Amino acid sequence: MQTDTEYSARREHLLPALAEGRVQGFLVTALPNVRYLSGFTGSHGAVLLTEDRALLFTDPRYQTQAPQESDCEVKIAKGPLIPEVVKWMNRLRLKTVAFEQNRISFLDYQHLKEHAKNIRLKPLSGKIEDLRMVKSPAEIASIKASVKLNSAALEQALRRFKPSMAEVDFAAEIEYRMRRLGADGTAFETIVASGPRTALPHARPTDRPIQPDQLLLVDMGSVVAGYASDMTRTYAVGKLDVRTRRMYRAVLESQRAAIDGVKPGATCSSVDRAARGVLRSYGLDNLFIHSTGHGLGLEIHENPRIGRKERTKLEPGMIITIEPGVYQEGVGGIRIEDTVVVTSNGCEILTPTGKELAVL
Amino acid sequence: MQTDTEYSARREHLLPALAEGRVQGFLVTALPNVRYLSGFTGSHGAVLLTEDRALLFTDPRYQTQAPQESDCEVKIAKGPLIPEVVKWMNRLRLKTVAFEQNRISFLDYQHLKEHAKNIRLKPLSGKIEDLRMVKSPAEIASIKASVKLNSAALEQALRRFKPSMAEVDFAAEIEYRMRRLGADGTAFETIVASGPRTALPHARPTDRPIQPDQLLLVDMGSVVAGYASDMTRTYAVGKLDVRTRRMYRAVLESQRAAIDGVKPGATCSSVDRAARGVLRSYGLDNLFIHSTGHGLGLEIHENPRIGRKERTKLEPGMIITIEPGVYQEGVGGIRIEDTVVVTSNGCEILTPTGKELAVL
Repeated sequence: MQTDTEYSARREHLLPALAEGRVQGFLVTALPNVRYLSGFTGSHGAVLLTEDRALLFTDPRYQTQAPQESDCEVKIAKGPLIPEVVKWMNRLRLKTVAFEQNRISFLDYQHLKEHAKNIRLKPLSGKIEDLRMVKSPAEIASIKASVKLNSAALEQALRRFKPSMAEVDFAAEIEYRMRRLGADGTAFETIVASGPRTALPHARPTDRPIQPDQLLLVDMGSVVAGYASDMTRTYAVGKLDVRTRRMYRAVLESQRAAIDGVKPGATCSSVDRAARGVLRSYGLDNLFIHSTGHGLGLEIHENPRIGRKERTKLEPGMIITIEPGVYQEGVGGIRIEDTVVVTSNGCEILTPTGKELAVL
Repeated sequence: MQTDTEYSARREHLLPALAEGRVQGFLVTALPNVRYLSGFTGSHGAVLLTEDRALLFTDPRYQTQAPQESDCEVKIAKGPLIPEVVKWMNRLRLKTVAFEQNRISFLDYQHLKEHAKNIRLKPLSGKIEDLRMVKSPAEIASIKASVKLNSAALEQALRRFKPSMAEVDFAAEIEYRMRRLGADGTAFETIVASGPRTALPHARPTDRPIQPDQLLLVDMGSVVAGYASDMTRTYAVGKLDVRTRRMYRAVLESQRAAIDGVKPGATCSSVDRAARGVLRSYGLDNLFIHSTGHGLGLEIHENPRIGRKERTKLEPGMIITIEPGVYQEGVGGIRIEDTVVVTSNGCEILTPTGKELAVL
């Protein structure tokens, strides 16, 4: 459970960035950032932060909910939010206001510029995302709960798995189990892909019956108390040929090597390199067409990205996924994904689900 | 089923807007618009449209899927999409390119401006949204299927309803039924709210058991073949007091009056006014805190908005929701929502679910 104190502490953590940027106000428009700073969970909102005030703007649909959820001063805008925000910028006599240039539409920016004629606007993005990389104990607890629930849902769904079941029906079973276990919902569209469709990293489940002697790939995430989980497992439905089993071993070894590299001070790129190195030794690195992982929290994809060029250094409290995969068009794909939290001397794997090749 | 011909016809419909705007290219960044024009269903993409070419940009995760789904020329960008898009803008010698100012981040716009130094950028938004307001026969069929499935899911879930069930468990049941009936997923977070929580128009389901002698509000939407449905029903769990039953009658009468006003040539504001007028006659209009409805299709909220100030005139083939509601803080709320398609002489209600006050 996050408390009002936690939200206000987060807002206070931003104040040095405001002082440093010589701005008196910070307009926050990215919804997950709004939630992070205010506790408000609605689908439409913005926060205006100053040294001594925190204003939450939303629309009349949330006039009851917003003050219940948030310790910010709630301002209800009858029309679009930006004009109401500008009114307050003027009322608070702000001269320079920072905004999130990557999380505001060009149109909203234009409105801001038009209506806030005497206010200087200063791009300042990434500050809240940087703060969000390192999770608080309350956040770690929420993500652990999400990861645990996600694994329990898969376990329950697998008990009901039958070969020849349609991909969509297995996806339905998974999502039902998540919900019954108490998830707010899915963190993303559940992927259940079988046979050659496993070669599509983002396959949507189809009516296709899951055939024997093929691969089955499941990529699933739950949302619990607003926090995402993310796990991928690849199964053998019946028998697999030697080549496919070798591919599985390669991906598992790659995933373990990457996890071994997760510790405070390690760069994200070194973790990515560890995963790629193993696949290279199997001659499979050219089939690994995405990055090794990503942070997660209020969003399913957060910083840091565990990619080739990412120089961010890991810190205790960061939570990331490790998910190497190989994909051969027309044949199939294998991906194995866990969520790990960086600890003071390494990392802890949060995902309890086994990852040796299992036959369904 | 939509065909390549349908996608290319849509792209051709945009060409006059390009000519009129004196632009040689149109950069489409809003994902639903990308899907509408290209058939591509992935989560990352952009379309560059010129008089004689249609390029679809996405990342390596979709290198197999994109050409299967789309008749556009697929270009895979290894890094961010914008630099790859600009490369093609230059290669195609485009001088002026339109962009969607309300569906591009300020940051992407800046990148565009920086890298496409010799290209004039011209804001041109709303054109595709305007096209999308009037649905093709294939789209109407998809939305009808979505609406029908959504109602079937509610009916199946209601058969398993038990008083004292937790709100989240009823939501889980609803979503499971959607999935088993063949939905791609939910169109938005399913709302199941009981008792005083019905007064929150966007309540998330909680662990709270659904108590007797209270209201139960269910707002749910499915996605079928990419197309959304949206329905709200409010039930009596046991007995309701006279005042609440009167409120229900008022909302139902208001909803019917609004539907009666849906016909070609009617303005959206006149439909909204019809709904509000009935609530005013009951002295309840001040408790109706949102607009009367909205278009839906590839997105759950599309144009036109059925609001006080919306001057758009209804046309045959438009599909909108009609959903007046009243909300009294601490007491409860009632909303009734159907989806209707505008026909040549009025409208057809697509939602088959009954809406007289039902007791569970």
